[in-house]
Amino acid sequence: MGGDHAPAAVVEGATLFAREHPQHQVILVGEERRIREALRGEPGGAISLRHASQAVAMGEHAGAAIRKKKDSSIRVCFELIRSGEASAMVSAGNSGAVMAGALLVLGRISGIDRPAFATLFPALKGEGRCLLLDAGANVDCKATHLAQFALMGEAYVRKLLGVQNPRVAILSNGEEATKGTLLTRNAVELLQRSDLRFIGYVEGKDIFSGDVEVVVTDGFTGNIVLKTSEGTAMAVAGLIRSAVQRAGLSEKLGALLLKPTLAGLQKVVDYAEYGGAPVLGVNGVGIVAHGRSQAKAVKNALKAALQTTQAHFQDELVARVRAAQSWLPARPAKRIKEPSEEAHSD
Amino acid sequence: MGGDHAPAAVVEGATLFAREHPQHQVILVGEERRIREALRGEPGGAISLRHASQAVAMGEHAGAAIRKKKDSSIRVCFELIRSGEASAMVSAGNSGAVMAGALLVLGRISGIDRPAFATLFPALKGEGRCLLLDAGANVDCKATHLAQFALMGEAYVRKLLGVQNPRVAILSNGEEATKGTLLTRNAVELLQRSDLRFIGYVEGKDIFSGDVEVVVTDGFTGNIVLKTSEGTAMAVAGLIRSAVQRAGLSEKLGALLLKPTLAGLQKVVDYAEYGGAPVLGVNGVGIVAHGRSQAKAVKNALKAALQTTQAHFQDELVARVRAAQSWLPARPAKRIKEPSEEAHSD
Repeated sequence: MGGDHAPAAVVEGATLFAREHPQHQVILVGEERRIREALRGEPGGAISLRHASQAVAMGEHAGAAIRKKKDSSIRVCFELIRSGEASAMVSAGNSGAVMAGALLVLGRISGIDRPAFATLFPALKGEGRCLLLDAGANVDCKATHLAQFALMGEAYVRKLLGVQNPRVAILSNGEEATKGTLLTRNAVELLQRSDLRFIGYVEGKDIFSGDVEVVVTDGFTGNIVLKTSEGTAMAVAGLIRSAVQRAGLSEKLGALLLKPTLAGLQKVVDYAEYGGAPVLGVNGVGIVAHGRSQAKAVKNALKAALQTTQAHFQDELVARVRAAQSWLPARPAKRIKEPSEEAHSD
Repeated sequence: MGGDHAPAAVVEGATLFAREHPQHQVILVGEERRIREALRGEPGGAISLRHASQAVAMGEHAGAAIRKKKDSSIRVCFELIRSGEASAMVSAGNSGAVMAGALLVLGRISGIDRPAFATLFPALKGEGRCLLLDAGANVDCKATHLAQFALMGEAYVRKLLGVQNPRVAILSNGEEATKGTLLTRNAVELLQRSDLRFIGYVEGKDIFSGDVEVVVTDGFTGNIVLKTSEGTAMAVAGLIRSAVQRAGLSEKLGALLLKPTLAGLQKVVDYAEYGGAPVLGVNGVGIVAHGRSQAKAVKNALKAALQTTQAHFQDELVARVRAAQSWLPARPAKRIKEPSEEAHSD
């Protein structure tokens, strides 16, 4: 039920995925009547339907909505994971509600205080990808949270992108150790004691440099990085368009000839293409697709969910967090949501 | 003496400026021998030379360097402004040292606790420009500082870009009032009481939207926005290049035909072209050009310095800050640098 083009784009994306992966089952969760309309008929084959009478809207307070709306599509998805009926969930809806649902229904992994959203950025050299987290779940962070993000991000990049020995850094306003805030300086101290390949501070431009594979920051800054990058890429695309419109005939011909190249570029810049932002640190696989997601982005998010499950990423993460307890302190994990968790889930 | 290509690029930029504006004087401040080398002869016409025996290096602690190196080129520039020999200064060097020099030699404007760096971004619609501040001077900010940034940014955009009634916003991780940090929420309260055209929160992508002309944030976040945007634009340019290299003959022809358009684009994206980042809130005009600045960027920074002086921006700013005392509290201004100021100048 989530996203600008729901349920049509979600249903279409699921149909594309099911066609490519007929050996896996997709459960469409939401208002039965509207899903049937989007399906133009009965579900069948690899696609089934699970009615959910409620939905969390984009503007709603995420934590309150998830607790109150017990039959909301997001919450039902997590209940399906909890009961073992589903292995993973994908939503293009309210990302705060996805985080709140994951925390309430699945709970945190033992050793992780603050689950985070992770987002992949394109890099020009190196492994060609950089994972940034937290991309927006936790506005107020402590140094231990940043260290936990580093641990989770490293595991994800190693296991799912196949990077052997990922470099991990903290986002700051300069590379020198004297830069940063109290938060980043405390996180540096923690990560220097870790067994990660920690390279210190990096700046905003380094995310795209190929010199680092995992960049950690608080969720406030992470969200701003994500949106600034999106805005810049859209501005560049728009400037190309308007420059071509103002330009002469030869430039217009040039743009026509370059169209396939520029379309390919759009794909690299559009992070929705990467398969959405995974929730890292909860007991299950949840992925948030961009609210603007069309069918293809939904399909890619489903593929990412499948790969995460098939790679047994959750087992790897749990083992990795347990092995890190020597240098990384954490509160004991609880299934039931605490007031302190609520603050960062909306 | 500052910047990756100093003194050659600085001297060349000054020469270009002097040729276009022969009625104004440029004083080149730095090591006499090296400047003469770069000039390939004697200074003359609109260009004169002022020897400074020291320079602040990029990695140096800005505050300490400015206090210790009394004959550093940056400090001498500010002394020339203080003595009335110069109307404005431009540096492509250590930006922290420029801020420290401005604070130490010129002092803060009464009513401004924290001078800030302001940076212009391109916007697709509207006025075509958006001013972001603080772009990196003040890592730890209070709500009053953000409100003062708003006041200074509004004055700059109105006076120097000619925008009649600029819209002012606070950068946040979402548009809803429940978003943001304690800092941003307190700043919202202050700005709602102001006489500015305050539109609340905006997200990172909105900087480029044309829907806002002044965006305020703390210097940590501002620096990251600046570098992320730079990194994204460079990544997009790099992706176009490598896509064209991999593409077929017709795409290569297309790229060739589009070359003038893409070159024009580079100019819009490269914020150095805008004439550097002004220091707002000190008793004089100081402008930091990008460290990568070539001659043209130095020339543009000199033009911006000239325009700022000719527009009597400082008088306007002082009047504007005085008029805002009813809603905007500030510490009394001091000429001598205080320990609390030191923390944000390196």
